[in-house]
Formats: sequence, structure tokens, C-alpha cells
Amino acid sequence: MKIYLAGPEVFLPDAKDVLRLKADMARGYGFEPLAPGDNQIETSGTRREMGYKINGFDEALMDAADGIIANLTPFRGPGADPGTCYEVGYMCAKGKAAFAYTNDARTYFERVSDLNDGKLSDASEGRFFDAEGLAVENFDMAENLMLVGGIERRGGKVITHAAAADARYTDLAAFEECLRLMAQAHL
Amino acid sequence: MKIYLAGPEVFLPDAKDVLRLKADMARGYGFEPLAPGDNQIETSGTRREMGYKINGFDEALMDAADGIIANLTPFRGPGADPGTCYEVGYMCAKGKAAFAYTNDARTYFERVSDLNDGKLSDASEGRFFDAEGLAVENFDMAENLMLVGGIERRGGKVITHAAAADARYTDLAAFEECLRLMAQAHL
Repeated sequence: MKIYLAGPEVFLPDAKDVLRLKADMARGYGFEPLAPGDNQIETSGTRREMGYKINGFDEALMDAADGIIANLTPFRGPGADPGTCYEVGYMCAKGKAAFAYTNDARTYFERVSDLNDGKLSDASEGRFFDAEGLAVENFDMAENLMLVGGIERRGGKVITHAAAADARYTDLAAFEECLRLMAQAHL
Repeated sequence: MKIYLAGPEVFLPDAKDVLRLKADMARGYGFEPLAPGDNQIETSGTRREMGYKINGFDEALMDAADGIIANLTPFRGPGADPGTCYEVGYMCAKGKAAFAYTNDARTYFERVSDLNDGKLSDASEGRFFDAEGLAVENFDMAENLMLVGGIERRGGKVITHAAAADARYTDLAAFEECLRLMAQAHL
């Protein structure tokens, strides 16, 4: 079974090492890992052309994969990396096995509340708003309901784990739990 | 042709009004609009069950739709709303027509650079890093390459527009440009 390894670790300075480690762990659970190509593709053309090329490469990997494990750890804000979210939607649409994890154990609501110093305004009917006046999702989920719902309604699971601050993008305990659950479900 | 209207406007206090306006505009271009159900579904069960229910409702709408217009305007950070990103990936995977817009005219790189007061460190080989030590995508695109690549490699387009700060989530000029392009391409 081939698994696509999605997540913002492609943006780490040592992305190749982290992806190699994740791939090795996936092999240890009997899977064939497919890692995104951001660091594997030779540079050519304009920057936009290069972006298209990486997108095509990564979509081909997803098409070849039987499942995805996505790292939804918050990235530059309270939400997950947009590219990873695209990939989860892509794989759920294809009916592939989808699991995810986040190294922040709080719910999305708690994260946005913390960013607003706990001061969310309760406008009406239990709807809470942030300082910008935008409603804050409050479904007791680690991420937006499309991601958690899309994954868990299909039999997958979003694992949460409180990683140390300096291991936010490198702690692989929750990733390993996804591997364990996926192996249990699919082998 | 049925179009799913994706975007963070579901989080506005007047979400229903904004979605009604977008739906009316879509009809004006000959489309049948399908708006996400966050504000249409009766509350029941636990919060998580409610989240699953909305996810199922919105996926059914996407399955019924022939295309998507996604609002990728940055949401609580430099990136687009995770739920909307999931939906773009979902529709691209299904081979449906995909267009998007953002009311921030900067590239993703420019936005992250601005958030870091223009101080991105250039570590090596033209790779720039933010204050957290994460590489900043630099593909001359308005969003992550999976979103822009996924949409534009399929013949869609990501429209950028510099909306006024107080109309960041309500300015519909770029949305209308998507409707115009989509009508041109598909009618």
C-alpha cells in the first residue's frame, strides 16, 4: 500500500532529512511512502512554471497512492498549511484512505481564542467572533470541519499530540500513531 | 451548470446576505449556485456530530456541482481558509471546473515578507526563510502552488484584486471576474 506523506515539513531547512525519516518509518509499518517533490525536482523555467511542475508531480504521486497521512500542524497562523489541506481534499475526493495528525493538541476554537487573548465576543446564539469580526468554528475539532469531517467520515482519524515548541514540525509521535492505525485498518 | 461557492464568507456575521448576493450574481451569469450549508443546517447532536453533518452536506453539494469558485482571500494569517483549500482540492480531484480569487493582490511570498517586516533570511540557493525558520514559497503565485497549480493547470484561473481593507471579505469584483471567465469558457 502506497502512502502520500503530506505536510509543511517540506518548508523546513532540513526537509529532505525529515521526509527521509518519515519514509523510513512508513516502510517499517509495511507501507511504500511517496513524499512530495518540492525538493526532488530540478529547477527549470520561470518560477510559476516551476510551481505548476511541482503541482503536477505531487498530484501524480497522489494519484499513484492508496492513501495519505497529512500533517495538519498549524502553519503561519491557527490553520493548517493550505497546500496540505488541498491534498487532503484531493485524496478524500478520490476515496483514498486518509489519516492526519497535528502537533498542537488544542481545538481550532481554542487556538483562535488563545490568539485573541481569550477575548472572543459572543454575538448571538452561541456564535463567537474574533477581533476581526469573523466567526470562530466551534465544533470540538482540531481543524476546520471539512478536513476533520472529510477524513473521519471516511473511517480515517485526526490524531492530536502536544509536541514541544521546538519540535512542532519534527515530532513524529502522532505521525507514527497514524501509521499504526492505518496498518491496523488496511493490512 | 451548477457552481459551488466556496470561501470564508461563511464566517461573516452577515454570511447569509453575502452568500445570497453571490448566488444572485452567479444566476446573472447563467449558473445555478450552490452555497455551503454552514448556515442552512438545523443544529442537532454534539458539536462534532454537527461538524460531520455540515461536511457531508457540503460534499454532497460539491458532488452535485459542475464547478467551483473559491475565495482564497487570506484568512487569519497569510494563507487561505483551510476548509476552502480542502474544497478546491476536492473539486480538482473530481475533474470539475475550478476558478478562484483573492482580494489581496500580493503574492504569497510578498505577504509573508510583509508579515516579517521585509526581513526574510536568504539561507542558500535563493531559498528564503521566515522568523520561525520555515522556507517561504516563492513561485510568483497568489497562494500555495498546489492550489494555483491545481486550478490553472486544469484551465481555471486565480484572479487577484486589491480590495479595500474594510471590504476584504465582501468585495465581489474578483468573484464577478471568475463568473465572467467561467461563463466564457463553459457556455
